[in-house]
Amino acid sequence: MKAKIITIGDELLIGQVVDTNSSWLAAELTKIGFNVSSILSISDTSDDIAKAITESEKENELTILTGGLGPTKDDITKTTLCKIFNSQLKFNEVVYADVEAFLAQRGVEMNHLNKDQALFPADAILLRNRHGTAPGIWLERNNRVIISLPGVPWEMKGIFKHEIVSRLEDFFNLPENYYQTIMISGIGESTLAIKLENWENQLPKYVKVAYLPSPGLIRLRLGITNKPATESHNKLETEIKKLYKIIPKNIVSDTEVSLQEIIGKLLNNSNKTIATAESCSGGNIAKMITSVPGCSQYFKGSIIAYSNEIKTKLLNVNKQIIQEYGAVSKQVVEAMAIGACKKLNTDYAIATSGIAGPEGGTLNKPVGYIWIAISDSNNTISKVFQFGKEREVNIKRTSIAALNMLREYIIYNS
Amino acid sequence: MKAKIITIGDELLIGQVVDTNSSWLAAELTKIGFNVSSILSISDTSDDIAKAITESEKENELTILTGGLGPTKDDITKTTLCKIFNSQLKFNEVVYADVEAFLAQRGVEMNHLNKDQALFPADAILLRNRHGTAPGIWLERNNRVIISLPGVPWEMKGIFKHEIVSRLEDFFNLPENYYQTIMISGIGESTLAIKLENWENQLPKYVKVAYLPSPGLIRLRLGITNKPATESHNKLETEIKKLYKIIPKNIVSDTEVSLQEIIGKLLNNSNKTIATAESCSGGNIAKMITSVPGCSQYFKGSIIAYSNEIKTKLLNVNKQIIQEYGAVSKQVVEAMAIGACKKLNTDYAIATSGIAGPEGGTLNKPVGYIWIAISDSNNTISKVFQFGKEREVNIKRTSIAALNMLREYIIYNS
Repeated sequence: MKAKIITIGDELLIGQVVDTNSSWLAAELTKIGFNVSSILSISDTSDDIAKAITESEKENELTILTGGLGPTKDDITKTTLCKIFNSQLKFNEVVYADVEAFLAQRGVEMNHLNKDQALFPADAILLRNRHGTAPGIWLERNNRVIISLPGVPWEMKGIFKHEIVSRLEDFFNLPENYYQTIMISGIGESTLAIKLENWENQLPKYVKVAYLPSPGLIRLRLGITNKPATESHNKLETEIKKLYKIIPKNIVSDTEVSLQEIIGKLLNNSNKTIATAESCSGGNIAKMITSVPGCSQYFKGSIIAYSNEIKTKLLNVNKQIIQEYGAVSKQVVEAMAIGACKKLNTDYAIATSGIAGPEGGTLNKPVGYIWIAISDSNNTISKVFQFGKEREVNIKRTSIAALNMLREYIIYNS
Repeated sequence: MKAKIITIGDELLIGQVVDTNSSWLAAELTKIGFNVSSILSISDTSDDIAKAITESEKENELTILTGGLGPTKDDITKTTLCKIFNSQLKFNEVVYADVEAFLAQRGVEMNHLNKDQALFPADAILLRNRHGTAPGIWLERNNRVIISLPGVPWEMKGIFKHEIVSRLEDFFNLPENYYQTIMISGIGESTLAIKLENWENQLPKYVKVAYLPSPGLIRLRLGITNKPATESHNKLETEIKKLYKIIPKNIVSDTEVSLQEIIGKLLNNSNKTIATAESCSGGNIAKMITSVPGCSQYFKGSIIAYSNEIKTKLLNVNKQIIQEYGAVSKQVVEAMAIGACKKLNTDYAIATSGIAGPEGGTLNKPVGYIWIAISDSNNTISKVFQFGKEREVNIKRTSIAALNMLREYIIYNS
C-alpha cells in the first residue's frame, strides 16, 4: 500500500525550517504497513498543491499533506482541496465549538480569523484537533484517501494518533512490514561493510540491508516487507545471531535506541548514578541524558564549567594545573571528572574540555581538539579526539563519543 | 532560475533519519538567487533515481541530489547517473589520491571498497571532497546541471561551499532575491494577523508575506524575488518601519537571529555575564546559549540541579523551602536563580523547575507545569507556565520562554 507525504510551505523551500513532520509521519506510516514511496515539499501556491495532489493520487493509495491550514493569509490548502474535490466550505459547528473551547482555555477571545477556521469542506470527514485551532481533513475518492493536517508538529501528531491510525486500518487492508536496526560503534563504514560482505551475500534477496552512518555510530537497518511480522522477526533474529559472531564487540544494541537510553538502562540495572562536568559540550550531554523520561532515577545533575573560575570553584580543579597544562588538557579534564563525582556525589561522571570552534584554536590545540574523561570512585580514564572545524558537529561528536566511552567503561571496566 | 533538491535514501522514507540536508541546501541556493521549486525524497532504487532526475530536468535548470554515494552496497546513485547520461565509470587518479590521503590522515588502510570510490563518471566534472571519501559529481546537458553529493552533512556542505557556489554563479545568470525575517513574540498568530491586516493589504503584490509560528516565537518573513537586492532592501525597510509602529513591543528583532544570539549581543554590549540553574530543562538552555560562537565572553556556566540534593548543596536552596513548597514552586525556582547568581558570580541567572513529563504530574502540578525565574543582583522575578504533555516540546518551550523572559528583563528592567 503506497503512501506519499507532501509538506507545504515556502519556509521549507527557502530553507528556513527543517521538515521534521515528514520523518515522523514516514515512521508512523511504515509502522502500520504503508510503503512511503516519496516525500515532497512544495510551495504554498494553489497550482502547486493541486498538481502535487492529483499526481500523487495516480500512484499512491494514500496522500498526506501537512501545512497551510493556519488562520493567516498564506494558508490556502483548504480552499485548494475544495477546488480539486468540487467541494465547498461550509460552517461546521463542531469545529467552531472546538476552536472556541481551545481559545477559552487559554483566555483568548475568538476573532474573525479563528471563526474562519470553522469553515470546513462539506464532503470531508472532520479530524478533530485537541492541540490547536486548525482541524484535519479526510477526503476519499476512487478508493484513495487524501488527508490534510496542520503543519504545527504537536497538532499534526495529535490528530494522526487520535483520529487517523484506526481509520486507516479500517479503510485499507495493510500488509505487515518488519524492520530491525543494529547499532554499531568503534568501526568505520567501509571496514564494517567488508567484514559483513560474506554475511550480506548469504542473505535471502528479500532481506534489505542499509548502512546509516552518523558521528561515532553506524546504524545497520535490516528490513523485510510484505511478510507476516513474526516470520520476519524470526528470520532476522537468526541473521543477527550470525552478526554477533562476526562483530561481537561492536554491536551496541540490536534494537534502535539512543546511546542515552542504553546508558539509562545500564545505570538503572546496576542502581548507579551519573553526573556531567561539561566545558566545550556546553550542557549538550546533560540535555541528551535528560531527554530520556525517568532519567531522574540515575541523573543527579551537571556543572557546566565554561569559565576557568567555575572549574576551580565548583569542580575543585587546581588552579595550578590549569595554568600549567591549559584548560584543554588530560590533567584538567580528569580533574573535572573527579571533581564532578565528588561534588555531585555520583558513581560515575563524564567530563569534556576542548576547542569547539570556530575561534580559539592554536597550532598545538586546533579547533576540534577535545579531551573527554570518565571517572568512577576508583579510576579515571581519558582520551583525546581531533574532530573537525564545525562548532555544531564538534559539540555533537563530543557528546556521542563521551556517552560511548561511558557505555564501554560501564560494560568492560565495572 | 529553478532548482530541485532530491535526497536519496530509504532511511528518509521509513522515517529513521530527518532530512536536514535539504533545508541547508535550500537556504544556500536561495541566497545565491535560485528559486527552489520543490524538495523530493526518494528510495535508493535505480528506477526511482532515474525517474526523479529526468522529471526534474524538464522543469528545473538545476537538480541537486544528495545521498547514495558511499562505499557500501546500498549506494547506487553513481551507476544510475552513468546509465542516464550514457557515461562510464573510469578510474580517476585525483579521486584515488584524495581518498588515500584522507584515510592515511586517520591511520586507516585503503580497502577495495574505498578503491571503488575512485571510479568516477568519465563525462563528469569532479567536485573534490575534503571531509570524506566520496567525491561530488557535476554533469551538464541542454544547459541544465545535475549535481550529485554525498549524504553526510559536513561532506555535502564542504563540497557545496568550496566546489559548487562559484561554478553555479559562472554557469547561470542568477537573479537577485531578497528575504527579511522579523522575529515577533508575546502575541498569538491570529491576533498578530488581525493587527497586521491593513498593513498587509497596502503592501505591493510582489512582496510576499509568510507567518512561521514556533513555540513562543513567530517569524514573519517578507520576500521580494527577481528585483535588485538594494531596491528590495529599501522597500522592505520602509514597510518594516510601519510594522514597528503597529507592534512596537512585540518585535524581538528585524533580522533572523536566534533568541540566544540576541541575548548574547545584549550581554556583550553591556559587559554582563549569565549563568543558568536548570532542573526540568536539563541543560537545554545552556546548550542553546553555548551554540553561539564566542559565548564564553558572557556565559560562565550552569548548574543542572536535577536532584533536590544538588539544589540544596550547589545552589544553596533551603531544604525547608523544598519540603514546604515542593521542588516545582515559585519559592524554589527563585532561590535557584539567586543561588546561581551567587555561586557562579554572574550578573544574571535563569532558573527552571517543572514537570517535563511524561510521568511525575499531580492534580495540582500536572505535566507541563513549569516555573521560570530570572535574577540579577537586585531583583528576582518569576512566572509559571502550563505547557502541554510532550516532554520534548515542554523542554523546548521552557527554554525559549526563559530566554525571552531574560531578554525582556534586560531591556525593560535594567
